[in-house]
Amino acid sequence: MVARSNHRFLIIADGQFEPMTSKTANCCIRYMPERVVGVFDRGHAGKTVQDVLGFGGTIPVVGDFERGLGLGATAVLIGIAPMGGRLPAEWRGWLRRAIEHGLEIWSGLHTFIGDDPELGRLARERGVRIFDARKPPANLPVADGLAAEVDAYVVHTVGSDCNVGKMTAQVELRNALIKRGHRTRFVATGQTGIFIEGWGIAVDAVVADFIAGASEWLVLEAAKDADIILVEGQGSLIHPGYSGVTLGLLHGSCPDALILCHQATRDYIGDYHGREPWVKIPTLPDLVEIYERAAAPVHPTKVIGICLNTFDMSEAQAREAVARAAEATGLPATDPVRFDSAPLVDAIVREALATK
Amino acid sequence: MVARSNHRFLIIADGQFEPMTSKTANCCIRYMPERVVGVFDRGHAGKTVQDVLGFGGTIPVVGDFERGLGLGATAVLIGIAPMGGRLPAEWRGWLRRAIEHGLEIWSGLHTFIGDDPELGRLARERGVRIFDARKPPANLPVADGLAAEVDAYVVHTVGSDCNVGKMTAQVELRNALIKRGHRTRFVATGQTGIFIEGWGIAVDAVVADFIAGASEWLVLEAAKDADIILVEGQGSLIHPGYSGVTLGLLHGSCPDALILCHQATRDYIGDYHGREPWVKIPTLPDLVEIYERAAAPVHPTKVIGICLNTFDMSEAQAREAVARAAEATGLPATDPVRFDSAPLVDAIVREALATK
Repeated sequence: MVARSNHRFLIIADGQFEPMTSKTANCCIRYMPERVVGVFDRGHAGKTVQDVLGFGGTIPVVGDFERGLGLGATAVLIGIAPMGGRLPAEWRGWLRRAIEHGLEIWSGLHTFIGDDPELGRLARERGVRIFDARKPPANLPVADGLAAEVDAYVVHTVGSDCNVGKMTAQVELRNALIKRGHRTRFVATGQTGIFIEGWGIAVDAVVADFIAGASEWLVLEAAKDADIILVEGQGSLIHPGYSGVTLGLLHGSCPDALILCHQATRDYIGDYHGREPWVKIPTLPDLVEIYERAAAPVHPTKVIGICLNTFDMSEAQAREAVARAAEATGLPATDPVRFDSAPLVDAIVREALATK
Repeated sequence: MVARSNHRFLIIADGQFEPMTSKTANCCIRYMPERVVGVFDRGHAGKTVQDVLGFGGTIPVVGDFERGLGLGATAVLIGIAPMGGRLPAEWRGWLRRAIEHGLEIWSGLHTFIGDDPELGRLARERGVRIFDARKPPANLPVADGLAAEVDAYVVHTVGSDCNVGKMTAQVELRNALIKRGHRTRFVATGQTGIFIEGWGIAVDAVVADFIAGASEWLVLEAAKDADIILVEGQGSLIHPGYSGVTLGLLHGSCPDALILCHQATRDYIGDYHGREPWVKIPTLPDLVEIYERAAAPVHPTKVIGICLNTFDMSEAQAREAVARAAEATGLPATDPVRFDSAPLVDAIVREALATK
């Protein structure tokens, strides 16, 4: 496990800096604001991050990349994740300028910047590190059931869709559990979590046969110094593009418990509105059943709480949505970012004590 | 799509040449025996392939690799798939000798022989091609639902476990459907199918985010000149290591129908007998439900037939197992290798006519 860095980041989120779009940028700002010196986005140039996201304070949004480089950053962090994860052509010039200025590049794209002939060579020439967070380690194992045997209590977030708060939930729960004195480790399984935590594996970037094996390895690593392990979820079992990642992660991490995450206002899987909405999101009780049934043949588990993302609702609507979710499922529910995370934290502690 | 080659193969199956172990070797022998000049296996040296497998005629098994090279092969085919797919150390010498003799190397391992510093360089120096069948094409898409829109009728084999006959079933059905005059294409999704068919993508070797996208691309390619598309299945939704591949393939290929494959005598997932049997295989009706439920949110489909592998049963036992499977599920059932494939072929043609 590598340690958290002390970099100061200029975040690239050009054209996509919005509450629900620039997920990596937003999460990095939320959980390490003290290390973000600016956001590059021509659409919101001149505003503060607070203006755009509703949090993040006075961090400036700049519309000129060169000006951004002058804010004192030591690294450029690519803060948006285009579908498929590849490097947009226009960005090449920005990254070249950053490397020429001696700034590290932190990227979570599927296309590894370090492997780019031009940028990789330039970085080597300048002695600049490129951190491709999605690059998997060599020699991953095929899953072997070892995650089921750790002493720690393993909680895994699963979701109705991508980008509903599976990572955010775990970071909030980690912070609350640590505050209560529990030896807790957050296991990052995606590039944003890896940026925040400093270690992990982007399980969507490993060779398909090793999704579960990578998940198992992460749990075994985390179990070395934790009593509660919070495994970040990816995608959704009903997502047409990414469901394989979700199931491999579920089977490989052998969780003792699941927390189901959902954006309360979302009715359809978000990536497929191009022609017409495609996959309708089932009810929360149906989703609970889908996940518990999918896990059962390999390692039975149960959903112990509901985590709602209510950022686009009024407070009254949000409280009603949380109450409805709790009533429909018979489970503790909350929005741990907006309200108190205690209902979920209590559930984890209660179940961990009862099980282990 | 590349054409089928005219190579004559020496197959490496050393130490594993058995009916249920050397799957790639056995399938290549079954479906292209005229192109196999010998099998290298020290355990069965001196026998014929027929002696070991019960099919394959007088193809010799040799216990000396140099002697094998003298049988007139133009390519060496790696015919066994160790768990994890990596290159055993001892094989390096054999492959070096083969390349020095000017023989192509056909490999389905996860470790690409062409990327091996020593063997790759030697092959380039000698002008010898290394065909790494598992190497995925560049720029795979994220699945976008396009497989659901093809005019062809798409049939996908799914299974209770790995190595139960999902590929074999499709090759048998392809042959029978073509004989009946249907424009049919077999879509290979694993290295053995790619060896036999000459094209395809090993979906277990693509980056995890692109499992479904690769599956979709294959269906779109096959739909260009076929009315019936038979998509080879991989793994199992209840396999602890490979379930992610299975679900991505199921969601990406958007099949109109499924054929459920099972080895009648198998009670537990086969890869996990190391400590004790782990995942119990559910009943056939439960498996039907597991697959139909998993597919439903993305693209509803139904199981239309049961394909049993009965190679290790007496004929009377096998016929009884087939009858029991048909009765338990209310679906046509057969062992298409041992008995007539007609029950499944009839079901496909009937459903295709009714649906499309």
